[in-house]
Amino acid sequence: PSPGSKIAIQTDILSKNNRLAEKNRALFTTKGIFALNLVSSPGSGKTTILERTLKDLRDALRCAVIEGDQQTDNDAVRIAATGVPVKQINTGAGCHLDAHMVGHAMEEFNLDHLDLLFIENVGNLVCPASFDLGENHKVVVLSVTEGEDKPLKYPQMFHAADVMLLNKIDILPHLDFDMEKCKEMARRVSPGIIIFEVSSKTGAGMDAWYGWLADQVKAAPGRRS
Amino acid sequence: PSPGSKIAIQTDILSKNNRLAEKNRALFTTKGIFALNLVSSPGSGKTTILERTLKDLRDALRCAVIEGDQQTDNDAVRIAATGVPVKQINTGAGCHLDAHMVGHAMEEFNLDHLDLLFIENVGNLVCPASFDLGENHKVVVLSVTEGEDKPLKYPQMFHAADVMLLNKIDILPHLDFDMEKCKEMARRVSPGIIIFEVSSKTGAGMDAWYGWLADQVKAAPGRRS
Ligand SMILES: Nc1nc2c(ncn2[C@@H]2O[C@H](COP(=O)(O)OP(=O)(O)OP(=O)(O)O)[C@@H](O)[C@H]2O)c(=O)[nH]1
Ligand SMILES: Nc1nc2c(ncn2[C@@H]2O[C@H](COP(=O)(O)OP(=O)(O)OP(=O)(O)O)[C@@H](O)[C@H]2O)c(=O)[nH]1
Ligand SMILES: [Mg+2]
Ligand SMILES: [Mg+2]
Ligand SMILES: [Zn+2]
Ligand SMILES: [Zn+2]
Repeated sequence: PSPGSKIAIQTDILSKNNRLAEKNRALFTTKGIFALNLVSSPGSGKTTILERTLKDLRDALRCAVIEGDQQTDNDAVRIAATGVPVKQINTGAGCHLDAHMVGHAMEEFNLDHLDLLFIENVGNLVCPASFDLGENHKVVVLSVTEGEDKPLKYPQMFHAADVMLLNKIDILPHLDFDMEKCKEMARRVSPGIIIFEVSSKTGAGMDAWYGWLADQVKAAPGRRS
Repeated sequence: PSPGSKIAIQTDILSKNNRLAEKNRALFTTKGIFALNLVSSPGSGKTTILERTLKDLRDALRCAVIEGDQQTDNDAVRIAATGVPVKQINTGAGCHLDAHMVGHAMEEFNLDHLDLLFIENVGNLVCPASFDLGENHKVVVLSVTEGEDKPLKYPQMFHAADVMLLNKIDILPHLDFDMEKCKEMARRVSPGIIIFEVSSKTGAGMDAWYGWLADQVKAAPGRRS
């Protein structure tokens, strides 16, 4: 096809996705569910963050997880071990979750007993930026091992994110990583971004993240209590 | 569009790309250039590997680099500091380099004085797997900080790669990373894959990689001396 028709198809895919994302958002609001879309490079620590978060919050908040991966149910198995309901989506050749996949995955959960939904996207710092899933916020995870300049080099994703978890801070003593420079670069592409410095291995910094989550759940659109 | 027409467009894009990749490959062969396509997650160390490789090999081999990034010329600036010719491509919203971009970038180099071309792709462990650039081999970089299971979770890319650089081995003492398990998983999706364990920070293990490069350049299709 000409570049024009390629763009037309792309626009059509995105507008179809946006319609389905609105449907998901309406469902979340109706049920008072606070939903987060976790995005990052492969291996930044999304699942490890979820494992620790769920263990620490599962008694206070009713959680569920949707796991997106090209292949394997490794991540769903890890989440299931925490006792939290989880649904694995395998995208095969696909590079991102879309709103349609998430809508179907929601059929697996009891929505009347759910406060907080985590959607772990396919590890990809590019494509998932364009696909609204109906979430309240995109949360981008950046491992300090990846270097300071990722926000400027992959700006669409950091621009789309409202929250950044700077993970693996336990390794900082063994790296040349300039934390202030990284945060400055993130704010350049996403001025109001909320940043938490954490280690999902040691638990350092996780309490601030939990505090934010609890506040957000309380204030979620459609929430009654 | 229906799923059918989406697939038709996708197939058309890929078959156009394949035609242009064959054109690039023919050019590389005519000129006796050995070309590698470096792929990885964002921040695995592609540019750091290139910086060290170029400094160590630039007197023995005539090199050039094509840099692919969504935004910034950070990586081209780093490569230019080694004195090696470099061309930056910014993909904007795009998630991978394609053969058309690489064909145009080649116009920047003196092809009669070139032994070894490195193409650093956009950091993305998914989409670049589908786009042949005309290279001799895809080289996948995996940082040991990303975890052992990436080959099974992102199998298309590891299947497409003939070489894997396991980078950042200097951090191993501070991680729980099972090297043998990771190599076993890589071989499960890409049985003949050649693996080098390296640190582009300390230089550990780089000599084996350089030896492989020198041998490959000598044996490159179309090479006369
Ligand atoms: N040192 C350290 N390692 C971590 C931390 N968080 C995660 N890891 C390690 O990083 C690797 C990847 O972690 P995962 O949680 O699987 O990352 P992910 O983002 O879910 O990866 P994908 O879903 O495959 O994209 C594993 O080896 C983890 O043990 C951390 O805070 N510190
Ligand atoms: N400790 C250690 N750090 C490394 C090594 N190689 C690269 N790094 C660091 O990893 C981070 C990312 O390195 P880059 O070379 O920019 O990675 P890249 O794959 O080119 O990144 P993008 O092009 O942005 O996708 C930087 O902070 C580097 O200093 C290594 O062998 N050991
Ligand atoms: Mg994961
Ligand atoms: Mg780079
Ligand atoms: Zn995609
Ligand atoms: Zn893509």
